[in-house]
Amino acid sequence: MASPSSTQTQSRSPEIRKDPVNNRWVIFSPARAKRPTDFKAKSPQNPNSSSSCPFCIGNEHECAPEIFRVPPDPKSDWKIRVIQNLYPALSRDIGSKKDGGPDGEMRCTGDLGRVVTGFGFHDVVIESPVHSVQLQDLEPREVGEVLLACKKRIEQIKEYDLIKYVQVFKNHGASAGASMSHSHSQLLALPVIPPTISARINSTKEYFDQTGKCCLCEVQPKDLQIDVTTHFISIVPFAATFPFEIWIIPRNHSSHFHELDNEKAVDLGGLLKLTLRKISVQLNNPPFNFMIQTAPLQAIDTQLAYIHWFLQIVPQLAGVGGFEIGTGCYINPVFSEDAAKVMREVNVP
Amino acid sequence: MASPSSTQTQSRSPEIRKDPVNNRWVIFSPARAKRPTDFKAKSPQNPNSSSSCPFCIGNEHECAPEIFRVPPDPKSDWKIRVIQNLYPALSRDIGSKKDGGPDGEMRCTGDLGRVVTGFGFHDVVIESPVHSVQLQDLEPREVGEVLLACKKRIEQIKEYDLIKYVQVFKNHGASAGASMSHSHSQLLALPVIPPTISARINSTKEYFDQTGKCCLCEVQPKDLQIDVTTHFISIVPFAATFPFEIWIIPRNHSSHFHELDNEKAVDLGGLLKLTLRKISVQLNNPPFNFMIQTAPLQAIDTQLAYIHWFLQIVPQLAGVGGFEIGTGCYINPVFSEDAAKVMREVNVP
Ligand SMILES: Nc1ncnc2c1ncn2[C@@H]1O[C@H](COP(=O)(O)OP(=O)(O)O[C@H]2O[C@H](CO)[C@@H](O)[C@H](O)[C@H]2O)[C@@H](O)[C@H]1O
Ligand SMILES: Nc1ncnc2c1ncn2[C@@H]1O[C@H](COP(=O)(O)OP(=O)(O)O[C@H]2O[C@H](CO)[C@@H](O)[C@H](O)[C@H]2O)[C@@H](O)[C@H]1O
Repeated sequence: MASPSSTQTQSRSPEIRKDPVNNRWVIFSPARAKRPTDFKAKSPQNPNSSSSCPFCIGNEHECAPEIFRVPPDPKSDWKIRVIQNLYPALSRDIGSKKDGGPDGEMRCTGDLGRVVTGFGFHDVVIESPVHSVQLQDLEPREVGEVLLACKKRIEQIKEYDLIKYVQVFKNHGASAGASMSHSHSQLLALPVIPPTISARINSTKEYFDQTGKCCLCEVQPKDLQIDVTTHFISIVPFAATFPFEIWIIPRNHSSHFHELDNEKAVDLGGLLKLTLRKISVQLNNPPFNFMIQTAPLQAIDTQLAYIHWFLQIVPQLAGVGGFEIGTGCYINPVFSEDAAKVMREVNVP
Repeated sequence: MASPSSTQTQSRSPEIRKDPVNNRWVIFSPARAKRPTDFKAKSPQNPNSSSSCPFCIGNEHECAPEIFRVPPDPKSDWKIRVIQNLYPALSRDIGSKKDGGPDGEMRCTGDLGRVVTGFGFHDVVIESPVHSVQLQDLEPREVGEVLLACKKRIEQIKEYDLIKYVQVFKNHGASAGASMSHSHSQLLALPVIPPTISARINSTKEYFDQTGKCCLCEVQPKDLQIDVTTHFISIVPFAATFPFEIWIIPRNHSSHFHELDNEKAVDLGGLLKLTLRKISVQLNNPPFNFMIQTAPLQAIDTQLAYIHWFLQIVPQLAGVGGFEIGTGCYINPVFSEDAAKVMREVNVP
C-alpha cells in the first residue's frame, strides 16, 4: 500500500495551480510530505526533550541555512534566529524562464487549468533558543523583537518584484497544525495574492466606497472590545469565524505590518502576550494559530486607504466538518459579544 | 474558569452575520455547543457500542422528530431515517417578521455588520439501522437509496422560498469532525448562498463566457481520471485542494443533484462505494468528508448552463495550519496526477 508520501518517487519542483471550478490557487509541494514531527500524539503538550530538536541552541547545524539572527553578532548567543525552512512549500531556487519561473509567467494546461512555477520563500522564525519557552513567556520587549524580526525579513523579501504577498503565521500545538513544538513562527512569501487577501481587499474597498472610511479605523462597538493600549486595540470581530477569534488592530491607520516601528513593536508585544495568556488561562491552554493580515507588497496608494493590517488569533477549540469544507461558511457556537465579555473579564496572574 | 460552552447562559436564536472585512456569512449557533459526542478520543475508530447510540434501531425515541423513513411504512423496520438534528445550527421555528425572520430581511448593526436571522433546516440522514455498518458496506442499490433520500428531502425543502441553498455533507471519523460514529449524513438548508458556492458559480461562468462550454462537461485529462461508469466519472481535480481529493461528476450536464433519477442513483451508489473502498484500502481507512456541490435552488436558466453538480470527497490526511486559515490558499503535497494514478491502480477486494 502506497502511503501519500511514498507516491512521491522523484522530487519535483513545486507548482501553484488553479482550475476553472474553484479558480483558487493551490500550492503543490511534494517536499512538504517529508517533514518530520516531534509530536508523538495529536496533543497540544510540548515535549520537553530539546536534545533532538534542531531549533534548540547548540543544534544549529541540523537546520537549513540561517538568514539572520538577533542579536546579529554570529559569535554571541542568539535570542532569535530566522532560517530557511528545510521542507519549503515554495522554492527560492527555481527560476529559468522556460518553465514559467520567476518571471511569473503563467502556463495553461489545455483549457482546464493554470500553473505558475512555485517560486517563493518559506522561512522559520525561531522565537527562543530554549525549548520550553513559549512566545507568551517572553517579555513584551522580546515579543516585540520577534515581530521586528518578521518585519526585517519582509523588508528583505520586498526586494523581489515577483513576490506579491508575505504571510506571517504561527502554529502552536499539534491540533493547530504544528509539527515542531519548539516555539516558532513562519513566513511564506508568494508569487500570487491569495484568495482571502483579495476578498478582504474587495470588501474593505466596498465599505470605503460607500462611507469614505476604512472599516478598521472606525470605532469598534464597546461590547466587542477586549483591551486597549497606546497604539493597539484587541476585539472579537462582529462575525468571528471561530469561537474566541481575536483581532489585534493598530489604532491608527496602517496598511503594512512592516510599517511597525520599535515603540509600537513593544506595545504590540505586550498586548499579544496578554492576549495569549488570557486565551491560555480561559480556554485551558488550547492549540492556536495567529496570522498577520497585511497588504500586498505592491498595493497601490488608492488601495492603501482601505487596507488596514491586523493580527488575527484563532484558538483551535473544535475542528471543522464537511459543511465548512463544502461551503466556506462557518458555524460559531459562541456569539462575539459573549466571547469578548469573557476575554475582557479574565484575570491573568 | 468559564469554558466556551458555559458562556452560553441563556439560549439565543441563531444568527447569520457578516462584517465588512471578511464579507462572508458566519452562522452563530449557541445550540451547537451542547451536542454530545460518542468518540472518546480523536480517532477514526468507531466505537461499537450501540446500546447508547440514539441513531440505532430501537432507540428512535432518543432522537429529534423523524421527517420520513425508508421504506415509508411506520410499522415496518426502517433502512434509512431522515430526522431533525437535535442541535441544529439553524432554526426551523423562528420567523416573526420583526426580528428579520424568514422574510429574509437583513438588519444592519451600525455600519459595521449585517445580520440575517438564522432560519433554516438542519437534518440528519441515518444511513443504516445497524451501528457497525458503514456507507461503503452497503450494496450499490442501498447507497443509491441514501442518495435518493437526500434528493427527496431537498425536494421538500425546495418549497420554502427563503431557502437558497441545501448543503448535503458527510463526516466520517472524529478527525473529519464527526461527533457521532453511527453512519449518517447531514443536510443544512440555508437562507443565504455560501461563499464557496458563489465563487464556484462565478468562475464556471467565466469559463463559459470564454469558451461557450461548461468546464465540467469537458473531457477530463486521462491522467486525472480514476473510474468511469455509465453515468459518472471519478477524477482527481487538476488543482485538488487536499491530497487525494476526488470528485464524482455526472457525465451528462446536470445542475442540480436532485435531478438524480433511480437508475443514476444506483450507478452513483456503486461508484461512491468503490471510491470509498479504494480510499479505505489505499489510505488506511482515513477519516473523510464528502460534500454534494450543487446549484442554488433558485438558480436561473442562464446560470444552469454552467453549473454542473458533483460529489466532492476529501480524505482527512493532514490538518491545516495558520497559512491556510490566513490565506485560504492550500498546500497539497501530492500532485493530482500522482494521486489519480494510485487511485486508478488500487485493487479493492
Ligand atoms: N531542521 C530543520 N530546519 C529548518 N526547518 C525545519 C527543520 N525541521 C523542520 N523544519 C520546518 O519547521 C516547520 C515547523 O512548522 P510548524 O510546526 O509550524 O508546522 P508545519 O509547517 O510543519 O505544518 C503546518 O502548517 C502548514 C502551513 O499552515 C500546513 O500546511 C500543515 O498542514 C500544518 O501541519 C515545518 O514547516 C518544517 O518544514
Ligand atoms: N439524539 C439526536 N437526535 C438528532 N440528532 C442528533 C442527536 N444526537 C446528536 N445529533 C446530531 O447528530 C449530528 C452528528 O453529526 P456529525 O457527527 O456529522 O458532526 P457534527 O454535526 O456534530 O459536527 C461536525 O460537523 C459540523 C458541520 O460540518 C462542524 O461544524 C463541526 O465542527 C464538526 O464537528 C450532530 O450535528 C448532532 O447535533
